[in-house]
Amino acid sequence: MSEFDLISRYFATKFPQRPDVDLGIGDDAAVCTIPPNMQLVTAIDTLVADVHFPLTTKPEDIGYKALAVNLSDMAAMGATPVWMTLALTCPEFNEVWLQKFSEGLLEIAQLNQVSLIGGDTTRGPLTITIQIAGLVPSNTVLKRNGAKPGDSIYVTGTIGDAGLGLQAVKQQIVLSKLAKKYTLSRLNRPTPRLAEGQKLLKVANSAIDISDGLVADLGHILKASNVGASLQIDNLPLSNELLESVPYEVAIELALSAGDDYELCFTIPESEILPINSCTYIGKIETDLGLRCVTKTGDIFIPKANGYQHF
Amino acid sequence: MSEFDLISRYFATKFPQRPDVDLGIGDDAAVCTIPPNMQLVTAIDTLVADVHFPLTTKPEDIGYKALAVNLSDMAAMGATPVWMTLALTCPEFNEVWLQKFSEGLLEIAQLNQVSLIGGDTTRGPLTITIQIAGLVPSNTVLKRNGAKPGDSIYVTGTIGDAGLGLQAVKQQIVLSKLAKKYTLSRLNRPTPRLAEGQKLLKVANSAIDISDGLVADLGHILKASNVGASLQIDNLPLSNELLESVPYEVAIELALSAGDDYELCFTIPESEILPINSCTYIGKIETDLGLRCVTKTGDIFIPKANGYQHF
Repeated sequence: MSEFDLISRYFATKFPQRPDVDLGIGDDAAVCTIPPNMQLVTAIDTLVADVHFPLTTKPEDIGYKALAVNLSDMAAMGATPVWMTLALTCPEFNEVWLQKFSEGLLEIAQLNQVSLIGGDTTRGPLTITIQIAGLVPSNTVLKRNGAKPGDSIYVTGTIGDAGLGLQAVKQQIVLSKLAKKYTLSRLNRPTPRLAEGQKLLKVANSAIDISDGLVADLGHILKASNVGASLQIDNLPLSNELLESVPYEVAIELALSAGDDYELCFTIPESEILPINSCTYIGKIETDLGLRCVTKTGDIFIPKANGYQHF
Repeated sequence: MSEFDLISRYFATKFPQRPDVDLGIGDDAAVCTIPPNMQLVTAIDTLVADVHFPLTTKPEDIGYKALAVNLSDMAAMGATPVWMTLALTCPEFNEVWLQKFSEGLLEIAQLNQVSLIGGDTTRGPLTITIQIAGLVPSNTVLKRNGAKPGDSIYVTGTIGDAGLGLQAVKQQIVLSKLAKKYTLSRLNRPTPRLAEGQKLLKVANSAIDISDGLVADLGHILKASNVGASLQIDNLPLSNELLESVPYEVAIELALSAGDDYELCFTIPESEILPINSCTYIGKIETDLGLRCVTKTGDIFIPKANGYQHF
């Protein structure tokens, strides 16, 4: 089977069709129309086998996650995702693998009405790069650099779960059946907080998604905004599955540093009404630079790790 | 050095700045504005080490070519390139390699005024994926599927040179110093035919860039347009360097099947005035399906290979 048959069999026809895609897969490039008064938002993210996911990961989960992490970038900007392009490098043409990979990718694409408008398939070590495009009403996009002293800091959902799931996959910990199922789902099929991001437009001063860990990613907001923060670590939203599986201190470390949860961290002026429910207050933006983690008894807490470093 | 330092040192600041980029590198995604009455054109292409380029290729040439092949897709659509995102996977943080890679990328980006608006750097086997965005006036884009019986078929520049260069790199052939220099330049630093593509808007019925070989790529036009063609193989534009280095029949085979030249192949109604000079008439679109290669004596010629197959 040629590269071209491969693309058309697995990818070209099954994905959501959108009226703003004027020319999709099958030419040298895709052609789309952007509505007036909207800005284009684009990001690109790569998953490398054995680096971003263990080699034992199911192909349908790889397909799902590859798009999920890109959608999470759209969520952090408050954008509505519309189209993607896929660069898939795989060591061989494995029909079963490709079918399952495309099923996972298709599932999350359908959930979010994202069209697949182009791609490139190449031979080589397994690497999946997705480039996502989204739209926002002009001049409303959420950025990292708008945090102001006095802003309240919130995080959606719970954090630390994916980190625990990764420990279980690596057989560094044995979990209960329920905890394993839950944390693996969090690791392999993260939920991009798209609806939450869109509701935060015009309300939040800054936002980011938590891919490298709360300390690292909140750190990006602080650096870009030239502010500091104090974090109430006993306020961190931890799942029951996490709390039941490891000592409290370990749960806190995972929540602060493990990453891969793809929740949103955002800051919002105290005067604004919170437009979403599923989020937790975790601290305050301050004038003093740096991040101070504080326990409920007022003690300073120093996290052991600072988030995922790629090199 | 962290991933973030790496991005800002080598990539964030040096590339052409454009007024339509509202938010560039450094957030979760980039934000751009599309002018009214223009369509967005996007493509994505991956180069894998030891598959798309030999491991001995200079990093500055890898950087140059990674963007060149994407720009060639823009040329084939008649689009003007504007922005790119880069997904770079490399096995280690090698400062010398990264600097040289970014120099090559920067050189061709500056030549074509392309902004680098985002990226992802990951650890893994060397793989470079670039996603390119371009603009065309609405409803003028060049497609593969518009070829009509009676159209004249043209190709820009000369073809077969990059294929000969690859044979030299692989030490399958010994070339004169001049021929080696020329064909390696064609292999490592292809020239995307952007000006030619833009001039063909509203004139050509179909266009494609030659990445997999003339037979394979013209074949895509024929299939998409549901037509056939006859090709005058003795008309194929061959460089002196190619003709001096190999027997005529080998030169023809390289021109038909080797690929990697990134010239444009396009079809144009006989009644239209050719809007560019640097191109050669090579055949006619016909109603009968299939591709017929004919010599100047009228004999049928059957190419040995059919173009690059990725799997």
